[in-house]
Amino acid sequence: MSSLLGAIEAGGTKVVCVVARDAATVLAERRLATTTPAATLGAAEDFFATVSSEMGALSAIGIASFGPLDMRRSSPTYGHLLATPKPGWENADLVTRFATRFSCPVVLDTDVNAAALAEALLGAGRGCGVLVYVTVGTGIGGGIVVSGRAVHGALHPEMGHIRVLRHERDRDLPGVCAFHGDCLEGLASGSAIRARYGAPLERLPAGHGAPEIVGYYLGQLAATIVLMISPERIVFGGGVMNNDRVLSELRSTAARFLNGYLPLAPTSLDELIVAPALGERSGIVGAIKLAEAARTAVTEKHS
Amino acid sequence: MSSLLGAIEAGGTKVVCVVARDAATVLAERRLATTTPAATLGAAEDFFATVSSEMGALSAIGIASFGPLDMRRSSPTYGHLLATPKPGWENADLVTRFATRFSCPVVLDTDVNAAALAEALLGAGRGCGVLVYVTVGTGIGGGIVVSGRAVHGALHPEMGHIRVLRHERDRDLPGVCAFHGDCLEGLASGSAIRARYGAPLERLPAGHGAPEIVGYYLGQLAATIVLMISPERIVFGGGVMNNDRVLSELRSTAARFLNGYLPLAPTSLDELIVAPALGERSGIVGAIKLAEAARTAVTEKHS
Repeated sequence: MSSLLGAIEAGGTKVVCVVARDAATVLAERRLATTTPAATLGAAEDFFATVSSEMGALSAIGIASFGPLDMRRSSPTYGHLLATPKPGWENADLVTRFATRFSCPVVLDTDVNAAALAEALLGAGRGCGVLVYVTVGTGIGGGIVVSGRAVHGALHPEMGHIRVLRHERDRDLPGVCAFHGDCLEGLASGSAIRARYGAPLERLPAGHGAPEIVGYYLGQLAATIVLMISPERIVFGGGVMNNDRVLSELRSTAARFLNGYLPLAPTSLDELIVAPALGERSGIVGAIKLAEAARTAVTEKHS
Repeated sequence: MSSLLGAIEAGGTKVVCVVARDAATVLAERRLATTTPAATLGAAEDFFATVSSEMGALSAIGIASFGPLDMRRSSPTYGHLLATPKPGWENADLVTRFATRFSCPVVLDTDVNAAALAEALLGAGRGCGVLVYVTVGTGIGGGIVVSGRAVHGALHPEMGHIRVLRHERDRDLPGVCAFHGDCLEGLASGSAIRARYGAPLERLPAGHGAPEIVGYYLGQLAATIVLMISPERIVFGGGVMNNDRVLSELRSTAARFLNGYLPLAPTSLDELIVAPALGERSGIVGAIKLAEAARTAVTEKHS
């Protein structure tokens, strides 16, 4: 059997496709703009077909996608996107075309679950029994890993949509979430930052108050994660987190909201809440790990 | 080796002790008032000693206790209560006296984790991969079971302390939580209900608005649980939930806060959010299951 793996990280603005032997050995990579499902997924399929014709068949494909996703195996819409604000993508089938074209197992998980898995296995959460990964980009999402596996229940976590208390200097923005208005994602995502300030954080002048407000909202999520799940590590990634002040405001808000209730010693909030060790590669590395697990399962079944 | 198990459920107002062969076969039971650690735990020890002298040695003891608990095996205060509003119980050692007196493994978990385990294995969550159990009594706590095991990370979940939006007709109560004032526990626990209305729910007249307000706060926790963890079942137990209107208000608030974001079909919120199947026995049954697992572990080690 071929040892080649395909992996896709599908985000709201770009799609990364790789062919790899394992997480450490990427053989080919392509970045695509996220346009329509037909055009974007078609281009991903073409990329895999071209590389595969040169290097050999793919033995498994891992897909890490923005959500929400239908991941119930028994569902007639398994592998489809569900209600998403991303135009044209609601009900898009992410799995069937790849499974049909390449005749191999296709494993799907959310982008954040995949990133959580990568950080838990190879990144900032190595050795942790319970890890939560949060990405703050166009939207806000989170994934939970317990004992080396992403947690799947009825659907998958959508922690970006929890309600938060408003910052006293941020009363006006109604919030940009199509479902909830001023939920966390509606107030602190990259989209909310652009709606409020007309520009992303990196274009605002030094000393601007935005990181304090964004960190205030994200810190409430961090406190809620500690109270709801009590993980050993919380990794905050995504473009908005590239601003260092956001992370420090987030930590101090979390400390204020917890108010000493959870005696975490010897773990301080600085050790508990960290940046990703794999940086922007965590999603695609997680997709490779998904494919790797599927290849192992097939090999074990056939041996 | 003896097949007798000891089990303790330690609550804020009472402590239940049993000697059992398994979860279905309780041989002796005693209920104690929760007074001081020395008096209450001493009486539990005496009960086990008396039963044991008649029936044989205990092979393991499971303890399900109110928290927060130090459950880090490497900690010098393993098995102790941490910062708790319960007078006299902060730093109480729940494990050592039993391990010393009965020379058997003593397994500790939170009362809600034990109840979650019991409901997942034998109650309302049978067949669910991910279950959350919430108890609403003197305080509010929650436990998570994934694949038949309670989740332990840095500490354990303390979901009673999340912040909630205030009900428009409940602006005055500052909240009774010693740490956070008007967190969920500060507004919707049995203690908060007594502080606000001067009586528990069952003593208020029919048609009183209290269940709507309490259900409004608890429904926010249910929505947060769905978003943060996406379990297949959420079990709400505890004395406050004995009022049927609280459960229906809770469900409708959760539906309103989620606002259709999570397409849970075929699971409706009525199927997702349920009462305990084991009723008030879930905590003690969970403690028996903890002891059972410890006995099995010892047996396997010796065989």
